[in-house]
Amino acid sequence: MTEYFTEHESAQAVIARLQQCDDPRFQQIMTSAIHHLHAFVKEVKPSMHEWRQAIDFLTRTGQMCDDKRQEWILASDTLGVSMLVETINHPASDGRTEATVLGPFHVADAPLLAMGDDICQDHKGLPCVVSGQILDLDGAPIEGAMLDIWQTNNDGFYDVQQPDMQPPMNLRGRFLTGADGRYHFRTIKPISYPVPTDGPVGAMLTRMGRHPYRPAHIHFIVTHDSHEPLVTHIFANGDPYLQSDAVFGVKKNLIVDFQDEDDPQLAAKLCVNTPFCRARFDVRLAPKPRGEPAKSLT
Amino acid sequence: MTEYFTEHESAQAVIARLQQCDDPRFQQIMTSAIHHLHAFVKEVKPSMHEWRQAIDFLTRTGQMCDDKRQEWILASDTLGVSMLVETINHPASDGRTEATVLGPFHVADAPLLAMGDDICQDHKGLPCVVSGQILDLDGAPIEGAMLDIWQTNNDGFYDVQQPDMQPPMNLRGRFLTGADGRYHFRTIKPISYPVPTDGPVGAMLTRMGRHPYRPAHIHFIVTHDSHEPLVTHIFANGDPYLQSDAVFGVKKNLIVDFQDEDDPQLAAKLCVNTPFCRARFDVRLAPKPRGEPAKSLT
Repeated sequence: MTEYFTEHESAQAVIARLQQCDDPRFQQIMTSAIHHLHAFVKEVKPSMHEWRQAIDFLTRTGQMCDDKRQEWILASDTLGVSMLVETINHPASDGRTEATVLGPFHVADAPLLAMGDDICQDHKGLPCVVSGQILDLDGAPIEGAMLDIWQTNNDGFYDVQQPDMQPPMNLRGRFLTGADGRYHFRTIKPISYPVPTDGPVGAMLTRMGRHPYRPAHIHFIVTHDSHEPLVTHIFANGDPYLQSDAVFGVKKNLIVDFQDEDDPQLAAKLCVNTPFCRARFDVRLAPKPRGEPAKSLT
Repeated sequence: MTEYFTEHESAQAVIARLQQCDDPRFQQIMTSAIHHLHAFVKEVKPSMHEWRQAIDFLTRTGQMCDDKRQEWILASDTLGVSMLVETINHPASDGRTEATVLGPFHVADAPLLAMGDDICQDHKGLPCVVSGQILDLDGAPIEGAMLDIWQTNNDGFYDVQQPDMQPPMNLRGRFLTGADGRYHFRTIKPISYPVPTDGPVGAMLTRMGRHPYRPAHIHFIVTHDSHEPLVTHIFANGDPYLQSDAVFGVKKNLIVDFQDEDDPQLAAKLCVNTPFCRARFDVRLAPKPRGEPAKSLT
């Protein structure tokens, strides 16, 4: 260590100040963060003007956040960080259904509905019936699994983005499985939509030459007392943005056919108008490790 | 490239989306940022809870900022990034006076004062006379150099931090050199003080086991039409925090003796009461490169 700060040993000078840190995990995180931050600065050698632009981006991204908008999660999502953290925390090599990003639009306490209920309250879009079964890793049905479902309306907005234009809890619902582990609900076929582009992250995407679209999807959280919680989506097969999802959320096993249907008898049986579509998605949950406390969802 | 996101190739998946970027410099910066961000995440493997804590820190740091408080500059300062960027942009191998961080408390348009004027309006602290000469790299005096000076009051706060308790522009002033390049002004002996600790950065410092103190200093910006601008401080020799400045700003050549004085005749000549102190600091400016536009200060 030199006595004062030098360009050559800049990271070491900062890391040396962690000697009095009494939290080994925080020390590890900050050591790695400082190392990479200084390596990044030395690699790109920002001008004072560029540094100030970075400060401005960081500031405005925080200031764009409120109780309905989380621009920092959007930044994390669009830079692939959320998906990386999600994947590190939820490896799926044992046959469990793969996880993907939570996204910023989950709302707690969506209405608890009966199987077959329609979560769409604004009557726009192509009717859709989604069904499947919640299974354990041996393929046995799971009773008492809670599905928490949400998606945008047919204009591409979540209810919380349009509090004056959509009914509260539009396109949200929770469903509890019975002994057969089966679920089904009515909704609309999801559509692809852009992430919010009116903030600093939107400007960043434009400057990177990237589009802001997410392929059409429906969000699922599936929880059960004795199984690991699952945060995932189903994606609509054929969507033009499947391979360029703005938040890198797509995994091959999460792509589902949304089958077009126009049989009036089937429509009557499923309580939808023609034309409509159907999607089927089975979920496999991993058991919780014995003796460990339940992991927090978020 | 794999078709969809994988943990192993996560950075490559994000960097591949920069192919349509038409700004090569931005492409370079984002490529490096994404590379280091993903390497950091893979190194520390944050839990979902830690990721959410990070999102919360980033959000609150932006929301702490207003027109008088810049918490992101404070974060940059306390992690040594500001000093690194400053040092990269202002190498001092040619004999010019070394630069240090600007800090968040500079205010434009401080009052233009006459040589010898007192910048201290609240009459607290040990009187101090600071003097010196602005020189070029050959040692010739520079006429028409503008000094912009600021420091905290004797309670350790800048005027803008205490708008209801300090006179506006307390301990700020600008001075223009004559043909001899000399300057002198009256102020108080600077004291060491903590950076603001009531925000997310203060909590980060505490968790890192670090103190928030900066060694006593006076800020200088020196500008002149045909010379490179200089942003620096002078530090008071003997200060206990010289080797642990919370923002890593100290350079050896910027440490100056603040000499205690109690000679009544000298005091009368310098228009101060006894006891007082004196500091001397000469500045050497580098010429602007020929044919290049003036660099922006910030």
